[in-house]
Amino acid sequence: MNLLIRNTRLPGASEPIDIQISQGRIQAMGPALTPLDHSELLDAQGMAATPGLVNGHTHASMTLFRGFGDDMPLMQWLQTRIWPAEARLTENDVYWGARLACLEMIRSGTVAFEDMYWHFHGMARAVEESGLRAGVGAVMIDVAGEDQAASCRRLTEQTFEESSRYSERVRFTLTPHAIYTVSPASLRWTAEFSARHDLPVHIHLSETHHEVEQCLQQHGVRPAVHLDRQGLLTPRVLLAHGVWLDDDELDLIAARGATLVTNPVSNMKLAVGGVFPFARAAARNIPIALGSDGAASNNSLDLFQEMKCLALIQKHAQNDPTALPAHEAWDVATGARASLLGRSGRLVPGERADLLLLRNEDPEMTPEHDLVSNLVYAATGHVVDTMIVDGKILMKNRIIPGEEEIRRQARAIAARVCAP
Amino acid sequence: MNLLIRNTRLPGASEPIDIQISQGRIQAMGPALTPLDHSELLDAQGMAATPGLVNGHTHASMTLFRGFGDDMPLMQWLQTRIWPAEARLTENDVYWGARLACLEMIRSGTVAFEDMYWHFHGMARAVEESGLRAGVGAVMIDVAGEDQAASCRRLTEQTFEESSRYSERVRFTLTPHAIYTVSPASLRWTAEFSARHDLPVHIHLSETHHEVEQCLQQHGVRPAVHLDRQGLLTPRVLLAHGVWLDDDELDLIAARGATLVTNPVSNMKLAVGGVFPFARAAARNIPIALGSDGAASNNSLDLFQEMKCLALIQKHAQNDPTALPAHEAWDVATGARASLLGRSGRLVPGERADLLLLRNEDPEMTPEHDLVSNLVYAATGHVVDTMIVDGKILMKNRIIPGEEEIRRQARAIAARVCAP
Repeated sequence: MNLLIRNTRLPGASEPIDIQISQGRIQAMGPALTPLDHSELLDAQGMAATPGLVNGHTHASMTLFRGFGDDMPLMQWLQTRIWPAEARLTENDVYWGARLACLEMIRSGTVAFEDMYWHFHGMARAVEESGLRAGVGAVMIDVAGEDQAASCRRLTEQTFEESSRYSERVRFTLTPHAIYTVSPASLRWTAEFSARHDLPVHIHLSETHHEVEQCLQQHGVRPAVHLDRQGLLTPRVLLAHGVWLDDDELDLIAARGATLVTNPVSNMKLAVGGVFPFARAAARNIPIALGSDGAASNNSLDLFQEMKCLALIQKHAQNDPTALPAHEAWDVATGARASLLGRSGRLVPGERADLLLLRNEDPEMTPEHDLVSNLVYAATGHVVDTMIVDGKILMKNRIIPGEEEIRRQARAIAARVCAP
Repeated sequence: MNLLIRNTRLPGASEPIDIQISQGRIQAMGPALTPLDHSELLDAQGMAATPGLVNGHTHASMTLFRGFGDDMPLMQWLQTRIWPAEARLTENDVYWGARLACLEMIRSGTVAFEDMYWHFHGMARAVEESGLRAGVGAVMIDVAGEDQAASCRRLTEQTFEESSRYSERVRFTLTPHAIYTVSPASLRWTAEFSARHDLPVHIHLSETHHEVEQCLQQHGVRPAVHLDRQGLLTPRVLLAHGVWLDDDELDLIAARGATLVTNPVSNMKLAVGGVFPFARAAARNIPIALGSDGAASNNSLDLFQEMKCLALIQKHAQNDPTALPAHEAWDVATGARASLLGRSGRLVPGERADLLLLRNEDPEMTPEHDLVSNLVYAATGHVVDTMIVDGKILMKNRIIPGEEEIRRQARAIAARVCAP
């Protein structure tokens, strides 16, 4: 099935153009294209077309815990709220939590995300059915010792084999939780497994100052150096947070080609105390992506709000209103600054047909001195009218089939797993 | 005309209630009320009712400059973009810019705002016709000397007299711009005029560190002390920003009963370098309100996003995830923490009928462990379905009559005044 988008426009341009989509890719762009055979026509009059956004770090199913214990000290929140509730989650619960997250992401313009959670198949099935793309992993934690480590490795190997049942929109990803919850041996095993099968790795790194101190105490080196010694700083690795990285660690990450994912809202909400060193990372050409973290610590998955907060906190921390201008924040949010995410951040022929059509009728989009500035500083995800992923329409006129059932299921599960 | 809202609910409560509105006030609340005669019925099934939000500091017509020169150094932005464009504004331009702002505010739940700008009648007419409430002033700046001061005073006196032509939704307010743009003599004149006519005063104070240094240099005291010496720290005064206030200044403000208005997004976007001393102000029981500042330095008037940023930057700055919890941020945004704004932040009989009906269908509002947490951390203004001000429906099902004409006029004016 082909799709022809009629009369859209690109940011900064005023002339209308058409976009012909075929086999999941942009096939041609230009004024008044002749439709390919069997093309569905989509009228985009008045709407701009942009690439979709990419969430580089989340725990999608944690939408079930949105607003469940905000404003608490971190360990008290985890121990009295999140961990007991997570212990009750079944694969089916994770599926519905992830469906809710996908619903929210589709409605706010996120076409792909990098996830880390339990119950791989619940997550993978939700991604498959929602139509989005995601890196999905079976989280590895082996604080309980050798038996847990062995069982995690078996689960990873098994899940990797089983993951071939999904379409290429579900990308199997290795997800060791963090250096303080995964042993050096398991980190090394992960590095080898990643190299052998050419698999991406997604791990938390240097989120809190406590993590740095603990690492120095236990391993005598800072977190990035510790990770590198286990072979886990490579161009296949996504490092979530990175708030407390020092210059030597940034040099090392740059040399190894790993990607950093900044999570400004979560970092502020959980008061990790520092601000992601964006300018120092960018100066070293380290790839940078944007993440929302889980909905329990944000509590939104709307990357429009996230990119605004990214620009705001960087201007504040750098004491410079010219820091991280709108166009740069937009590029980070589209994945254009992180080649590991596999997208150019541009709508050009040959690129995957993962794109958005944006309403310009809302007052917050008026006037239009600069569309990208409006998107970063004034808009929310509610300006997304239509989402196309892999050439298929996931949302049109803000309507997504099946919404009500997802909300109903998620509400019931949240009530059950969060009950006292 | 009376209005009966059927089957709504209050945050934290599950039982449906009705709200009877009469003569602009909440007349009764309870289950299955019998409608007063001539009551319009409004079905609010599934929707929560809350007080409307209050924007304590904005320059509404600056919506015309949304996205016009972001990410620039402050003085360069003002000198090359904003000031030349503002010099071209007519009263009619200010009217349409303000109508656009009112549109955005209605759509995002703001029922009242405190404005400071030129062309009083353009602003007042927009407020009158939009149905919102506002404190409106004719800004006073006398850097050019005695002649300008005299002309500002005459304009203020004249505008004050003329302001009686508007309804009580337009409240005349004295708006001296700041201590660095208004002479001590004009500040004293303003204080006397305010006392004589019992008028509120709205002024910028201690936004940047430069302002503090300049004040120390010119007057030998810090900004709040300088303002107090001119008689302008009173319970009638709104002080916008207050980022750089020290403990002695906060003690003085507390003793005088003035109100502080924090503008977290603008302060970050313009990189004023500091963070509003919320905890120190709250510890002194200083009244605190929330402001968006103008759309040119935000670039949104959506207070839902503003209250999230307020909570986030305070948690970050105080290095404490328990700082400024959701319910406190919500209270600040409803005006409940600033009695000068004249609202309790609660829906109770006798209170003005300025309220919102909120959709709970959006995925970001699901699940509902805590409605107020969802409103502060997950929602945007797009959850507002219906707005009622002074007992009248300004928006229902997100539809506001006349939207398209407002957008069309604002676009044309923005293009004209911002042309090179």
